[in-house]
Amino acid sequence: MSHDISLHAVNLSLECETVTASFLHSSRHLPPVCIVGLGLIGGSIIRDLTAAGHDAFGYTHSNAGTRAAQKDGFDVTNDLEAALQKAEAQQALIVIAVPMDAVATVLDAIAEHAPSCGITDVVSVKQPVYDLVLERGLEERYVGGHPMAGTEFSGWSASQEGLFQRAAWVVTYDYAESVDKVPQTWASLFADVCNLVAVTGAEAVPVSVKRHDEAVARVSHLPHVIAEALSVVGDRGGTLAQSLAAGSFKGATRVAGTDPSLVRNMCETNAESLVHIIDEFTELLADARSALSADAPSMKRLAENGHRAHTRMLARSGARRESVSPVKISSRPVMRLHPGAPGWVKQLRQIESLGGRVEVF
Amino acid sequence: MSHDISLHAVNLSLECETVTASFLHSSRHLPPVCIVGLGLIGGSIIRDLTAAGHDAFGYTHSNAGTRAAQKDGFDVTNDLEAALQKAEAQQALIVIAVPMDAVATVLDAIAEHAPSCGITDVVSVKQPVYDLVLERGLEERYVGGHPMAGTEFSGWSASQEGLFQRAAWVVTYDYAESVDKVPQTWASLFADVCNLVAVTGAEAVPVSVKRHDEAVARVSHLPHVIAEALSVVGDRGGTLAQSLAAGSFKGATRVAGTDPSLVRNMCETNAESLVHIIDEFTELLADARSALSADAPSMKRLAENGHRAHTRMLARSGARRESVSPVKISSRPVMRLHPGAPGWVKQLRQIESLGGRVEVF
Repeated sequence: MSHDISLHAVNLSLECETVTASFLHSSRHLPPVCIVGLGLIGGSIIRDLTAAGHDAFGYTHSNAGTRAAQKDGFDVTNDLEAALQKAEAQQALIVIAVPMDAVATVLDAIAEHAPSCGITDVVSVKQPVYDLVLERGLEERYVGGHPMAGTEFSGWSASQEGLFQRAAWVVTYDYAESVDKVPQTWASLFADVCNLVAVTGAEAVPVSVKRHDEAVARVSHLPHVIAEALSVVGDRGGTLAQSLAAGSFKGATRVAGTDPSLVRNMCETNAESLVHIIDEFTELLADARSALSADAPSMKRLAENGHRAHTRMLARSGARRESVSPVKISSRPVMRLHPGAPGWVKQLRQIESLGGRVEVF
Repeated sequence: MSHDISLHAVNLSLECETVTASFLHSSRHLPPVCIVGLGLIGGSIIRDLTAAGHDAFGYTHSNAGTRAAQKDGFDVTNDLEAALQKAEAQQALIVIAVPMDAVATVLDAIAEHAPSCGITDVVSVKQPVYDLVLERGLEERYVGGHPMAGTEFSGWSASQEGLFQRAAWVVTYDYAESVDKVPQTWASLFADVCNLVAVTGAEAVPVSVKRHDEAVARVSHLPHVIAEALSVVGDRGGTLAQSLAAGSFKGATRVAGTDPSLVRNMCETNAESLVHIIDEFTELLADARSALSADAPSMKRLAENGHRAHTRMLARSGARRESVSPVKISSRPVMRLHPGAPGWVKQLRQIESLGGRVEVF
């Protein structure tokens, strides 16, 4: 599998060279960045930007968070209106980094106090955010985002430099597919968001809203549901089960340490996709349960299919156990493109089908 | 919770001081150790013993494994009969470290070639092994074991020194409960096994066969089943899902990298307990699925119960995120006892109910 993907990557790069040879490479452009919400994700973004020497400032509703971030030397306020007015004055890129249930309020404030800034977000579901964006007619100024990185901790104190290093960072482009001609302002905003991603060390992966929500139900929201349920099952085993719990249990339950309100926000707002994926998963468990209840208990089918699937996932993600090299090479095929250039939206669709990443110039 | 346990630990220690004050502390006794099977677990045991200067030798059926282990300087043969005859001559403690489906053959060979050695094992289910032991009338010479440590890799090349550091290592004592008076030879064997555990840096946790199999279905075999099924669900999402899979997915699927024949051996031989635990787990998922399908999707119940359960498990296992100390203190209450001393089997039952560990003298 990974071999196939490498070949694709080569082909795509060659294609890109041809298509884009007429554009001059520009240096990475990124306006000042205003981050609304300074928890684990927003806090880690302002740390990365500041460390890279980029102009970044932020807002958090938490007084304790504000004081802690200011003490750490960051340009932070707990006055949302003031932060947005400053963003407007500087034509900053606004990053919405609040939980899903606070997004509507933030969008309203942006519409009022920063009426011409570009907007992105880092919320872990994309359709509900996009619905709110469309309701307010903000789609021309919005590019959705979702960094696939995090820990089980939350708040400013959990934020850290380098959190996004080599992570996939989803960048949505539904707006570009919905119009006949993409305005250059939107193409520039898309480039800005990709450049923001690059500054954090992450990799911009273009994905449509719908495909994003289905894929994260599969690889992120289901694992959260599993972690919660497995924690309950383990806990019911009392002190003996706790004493015997080792790596397999700890690995599968770590994210149950996440603030339950954040887990609810993710799962409840992506319930439609998630329910289908839970069904897929429980069907596999039911098959295994049935084969294990037979006179000659068997887990042949699930053990072998699971191991093959795991091997494929690892191969695709470029994990090489035998490698002794400390240099990790991204396993995602890359396409370099210039937002706004002829055929660029088609290129995004191509790279999406490979789970690849884009670099903009 | 962890506070409660600390208090228990203090009480038990005080009790033990009283009960055992009349015994002289002896230096740690351990006969030579013969390890049958040199995969991940057996290989790691011979590495730890040899590193600690203890006399240890082993057998593996794998010619490549034999050559590799010999090249690494270990006393290893691919001749089982020769290894067992040497064990008999040296009155070694024999450790059975083969998969469940090879245990019967090894027990037969031991009965023939090493008719008076003490026997332990490291197999991840205990009732099926004990049934084979009872069938052969070897129970007076057998103390079951199960180190709760491992990785997703197998074979000699995966073995490593220090694998068991601070892990729970189950030591079974059903035989002592089944007889009116425990023979001193069995008590000494129990002490030898605890001393073996101590040499590897693990902690000996006394557990009856039945309770062991139920507890590991909960905290080890279910996580393996989950890892396999989640891997399949992720893989079905194709390259996009692979590209977006991050920590929560990787943590929950790591052990799907285990050789499927080993997973089958574990799960199929513990099918009765495992089926009940799968039912417990799927019931929680079904509740969540139902609440997520409602008009107002909710995951309140599972998210909150899961988070509370996770917090309790962490507290019990002594994890302290805020701790800056590099010294890790065992969270398992400890009881020091002398196998064979008055009341020692009752003490084992007491410590089992707390998931605690024993130190023998």
